[in-house]
Amino acid sequence: MGNFQVRTDLALEARESISEADSELRGVRVEEYYREKEDVKVTKVMIDTKNAAKAMGKPVGIYVTMEAPAMVEPDEDYHREISQCIAEELLKLIPGADKEQSVLVVGLGNREVTADSLGPQAIDNLFITRHIVREFGKAAYNCEKVNQVSSLEPGVMARTGMETAEIVKGVVEETAPDVLIVIDALAARSIRRLNRTIQITNTGIQPGSGVGNHRNALTLESLGVPVIAIGIPTVVDAATIVSDALEKLLEEEKELDVVKYVSRQETGFAELNNMYMTGKDIDAVIKRVSFTVSEGINIAMEMRMD
Amino acid sequence: MGNFQVRTDLALEARESISEADSELRGVRVEEYYREKEDVKVTKVMIDTKNAAKAMGKPVGIYVTMEAPAMVEPDEDYHREISQCIAEELLKLIPGADKEQSVLVVGLGNREVTADSLGPQAIDNLFITRHIVREFGKAAYNCEKVNQVSSLEPGVMARTGMETAEIVKGVVEETAPDVLIVIDALAARSIRRLNRTIQITNTGIQPGSGVGNHRNALTLESLGVPVIAIGIPTVVDAATIVSDALEKLLEEEKELDVVKYVSRQETGFAELNNMYMTGKDIDAVIKRVSFTVSEGINIAMEMRMD
Amino acid sequence: MGNFQVRTDLALEARESISEADSELRGVRVEEYYREKEDVKVTKVMIDTKNAAKAMGKPVGIYVTMEAPAMVEPDEDYHREISQCIAEELLKLIPGADKEQSVLVVGLGNREVTADSLGPQAIDNLFITRHIVREFGKAAYNCEKVNQVSSLEPGVMARTGMETAEIVKGVVEETAPDVLIVIDALAARSIRRLNRTIQITNTGIQPGSGVGNHRNALTLESLGVPVIAIGIPTVVDAATIVSDALEKLLEEEKELDVVKYVSRQETGFAELNNMYMTGKDIDAVIKRVSFTVSEGINIAMEMRMD
Amino acid sequence: MGNFQVRTDLALEARESISEADSELRGVRVEEYYREKEDVKVTKVMIDTKNAAKAMGKPVGIYVTMEAPAMVEPDEDYHREISQCIAEELLKLIPGADKEQSVLVVGLGNREVTADSLGPQAIDNLFITRHIVREFGKAAYNCEKVNQVSSLEPGVMARTGMETAEIVKGVVEETAPDVLIVIDALAARSIRRLNRTIQITNTGIQPGSGVGNHRNALTLESLGVPVIAIGIPTVVDAATIVSDALEKLLEEEKELDVVKYVSRQETGFAELNNMYMTGKDIDAVIKRVSFTVSEGINIAMEMRMD
Repeated sequence: MGNFQVRTDLALEARESISEADSELRGVRVEEYYREKEDVKVTKVMIDTKNAAKAMGKPVGIYVTMEAPAMVEPDEDYHREISQCIAEELLKLIPGADKEQSVLVVGLGNREVTADSLGPQAIDNLFITRHIVREFGKAAYNCEKVNQVSSLEPGVMARTGMETAEIVKGVVEETAPDVLIVIDALAARSIRRLNRTIQITNTGIQPGSGVGNHRNALTLESLGVPVIAIGIPTVVDAATIVSDALEKLLEEEKELDVVKYVSRQETGFAELNNMYMTGKDIDAVIKRVSFTVSEGINIAMEMRMD
Repeated sequence: MGNFQVRTDLALEARESISEADSELRGVRVEEYYREKEDVKVTKVMIDTKNAAKAMGKPVGIYVTMEAPAMVEPDEDYHREISQCIAEELLKLIPGADKEQSVLVVGLGNREVTADSLGPQAIDNLFITRHIVREFGKAAYNCEKVNQVSSLEPGVMARTGMETAEIVKGVVEETAPDVLIVIDALAARSIRRLNRTIQITNTGIQPGSGVGNHRNALTLESLGVPVIAIGIPTVVDAATIVSDALEKLLEEEKELDVVKYVSRQETGFAELNNMYMTGKDIDAVIKRVSFTVSEGINIAMEMRMD
Repeated sequence: MGNFQVRTDLALEARESISEADSELRGVRVEEYYREKEDVKVTKVMIDTKNAAKAMGKPVGIYVTMEAPAMVEPDEDYHREISQCIAEELLKLIPGADKEQSVLVVGLGNREVTADSLGPQAIDNLFITRHIVREFGKAAYNCEKVNQVSSLEPGVMARTGMETAEIVKGVVEETAPDVLIVIDALAARSIRRLNRTIQITNTGIQPGSGVGNHRNALTLESLGVPVIAIGIPTVVDAATIVSDALEKLLEEEKELDVVKYVSRQETGFAELNNMYMTGKDIDAVIKRVSFTVSEGINIAMEMRMD
Repeated sequence: MGNFQVRTDLALEARESISEADSELRGVRVEEYYREKEDVKVTKVMIDTKNAAKAMGKPVGIYVTMEAPAMVEPDEDYHREISQCIAEELLKLIPGADKEQSVLVVGLGNREVTADSLGPQAIDNLFITRHIVREFGKAAYNCEKVNQVSSLEPGVMARTGMETAEIVKGVVEETAPDVLIVIDALAARSIRRLNRTIQITNTGIQPGSGVGNHRNALTLESLGVPVIAIGIPTVVDAATIVSDALEKLLEEEKELDVVKYVSRQETGFAELNNMYMTGKDIDAVIKRVSFTVSEGINIAMEMRMD
């Protein structure tokens, strides 16, 4: 499709898109395994070189994608087995996770827009310890090792007048955490991945991705501490879905002039910008998956205490 | 497009869709006028016969559509001039609006899903008087004529386990209002109409329309009192948008087999069901337009006092 | 204190207050037992006669009070062991609980006032089944016996213009449940009972009690179905607390003229009306205890399936 | 009353309390005037010396108190005339308010606790301009002078694990505003002042005051920029109210031993700590007064543009 940009926040989808053209992309390694007990398929995409990063449209780093079809269905509670997977994969990506650390968890997104409220809602259920440890010492928890967990909901620029990166940077400099965990709602290319895929990456957050695009870079380079990003795709870009539908059609109808179509698309679908597509039960889904994510972080933080 | 159903809650769009095929549809009258001061274009579609109703896919009755491009833009406040228009058009459709009445305003939709929260948010700003008038008499407001305004937010079936129509019917029978005003978020066919069009109709609410489809009929027939519905389109059906995009393409590419396309669409786009498309600033837009609607009702209720 | 009325919604406190004067009140029986595993003290006050009801200021019926000191403390989750107790005591009070039933759960109170939001928040976590059973039959749950659970949040009169009792009565008549469970925040006399006491009664809700006093009677007499009320005291009446403090002082200072004091109190403390007292962490407490209550109901509804 | 500390955030009340003992306190000047048009009584307490500050329990600075009895009553809207007063008094206290400035408005308090949500709710209605001016220049507003307004809701320590002062300091250092405006719910001593008094001071926020006590100092000294605090008393400390009630009684009954009473109070009323008293309609009141405050700031920011 040439230079028409398909928008996805999932490295998994970016790679699928690319491998069609170039099935042996250098600098990108992929590992897959299946966690049978939890029915979770884990795909680890490692982008090793700058060239590969450019081809993928994603920075160098590790992207762990967990496909958990069960997550979108209600169980009795919130899928604790998936939280357990999140905890384990998360700890593999946090540098120094075997030591006691101070961890700041940032919930990106807009609480007032259901599909964009994953980050803020996940923050609501975290087990916050930093203020207790600092006031009463570790004795408060009767453990030898206790992480100091704090959280921040920076809000969106339309309400704050500030870039998310400005707020996060200020708070990081003032409170000096050892590591950042950033939670955000993502955009997928495929409807099938909505709300049942979790991506954990050690590359942080780059400008131009996410539902509301409400921030600049939150990365090791910009903040000076490792940044682990946890995301779940909750929306599909409207332009992407229309483009995909057209593309399928075009593939079958060879007589159509693709160039003409692409240019028409770029002018004709301008009104689709700033639109997104999401499911009708998004409120119940976000409530549930945000709890799965926050419990994943809670479990990870406790596991390190031992 | 034959029997492929384009989904819209706007009578205006239903008519546009039909008039392409049959420009002189019998049993449908259309009046248009422009309110220059408020920059609002008013279109009144009157469906007079059952045959016309069937062709339009909308019940017999009057549909007033107000196109107010300004509504989507923030002004200093909430576009009081549009509220004034709403009040005037609303009073024309309420039977007996010159007399003192008891009016129950029902806010349909799901407060937890931003694009579906128009009804609940509009309810929040209503001036409620019924309980005061019943306890202290009209003297409480120092007026000769006072309407008794009450409100109800029935919630959605997934949370209540009850049809909206069951809840509303029970409350109507117990509290015996003279008229119902029902507020709901609608689905439009065209993105250009989102959040800047208001439809007021005296046909009430029919099953199968609206964002979440969260109710059975709320009509004079089912409830025994006149039901005026006020709606603003806040979403576009995902399947509709893809279908429209394809249709435009097909019009230009005559060699494509439309029948083949339609059948493919019906099977291929099943995953688009239960998806909808909306704008990224939907939180700010709903907050503003819900206030415009509730002020419209507040003004109408006061105007009748004179 | 003669006719000065001490306000409490707890039968337990009403009895304590009375037994000081008359330790063998006829027509009132009290049973106590201790659930060691859960550290819950259960007191069952049975008011058997109209005379006793008059003396107690509570209608004839059974009042089960569970004192659970742990409830106010966070545990890992929400005190499932207390939910289990609630389920068991609840089932003892529901007539016909061994059969399949249709149960409407009503969350009283004002979601916008933290201390009064117990009912609405408890509703949020209920497992709602009525609409599923009615559409798909019991087969949907793969059980032989399934209760039909529905829920209603009627809201407060200042927002609806209707008495809570009007709304509930209309919905009960339309949907014909077998039994009502009503959840409400209560006022206690003693600060020590706040947020750690649960009262379950088969007398329903009487006018004049509760935080916001937002309703008329919800009883078997008024609605035609059994009404079980579950309440947790979340506030203390401001006038009650001042009166109690003064009373203690007066007991020690015999030379004070009680009559003079009481009359002064009635005029001087008028400004305390419509005030209540609550804790600073009321948001976290309500979030937790509302979950404990809703899980109690969820467990009870499942237990009956067996 | 010796060393028993009466808790109030209002300098006006602190002075009343003191002047009983010492009617000519040195280092404290008081000016009063009445704004007839708006029915607002303005009292300006100037604490000029450290000795006076110690006696008053408030830091050196200017405290403007506006008593606006109308504020607690609904009018058609939100009492724009009081917002106008707030704007004028606010500008008198902001250094350099005649020039274009960058202003960060901080909403303190807990959105989840109704009586403590004044700050967060006031933030919701601010007109935010900083991001627009920085991206598009002043031309975006078609004015010669435009202030850059940003806002921050830091949240409470129990949820963030961080002191409010840490968050605010980080953001101030990163975004370098010229002045801070901090909005917070206050505790009054007298019920009569609740929700109808506005205090504006140039001393910022000191530890130990406010409803939830959720912060360290936010002052010129700690942050390096002038800090103007706007507060409205929404609660009365529970211990204060009981103590006041007892005090009144004791004044009339001279035979009581005050010393004995005070010591008893300090032990006996420990359970009143962390309790506060507020009105039953606090949700509607906070919604209204927070709007009055935010409009006051909006008007002030515009006035400076001319």
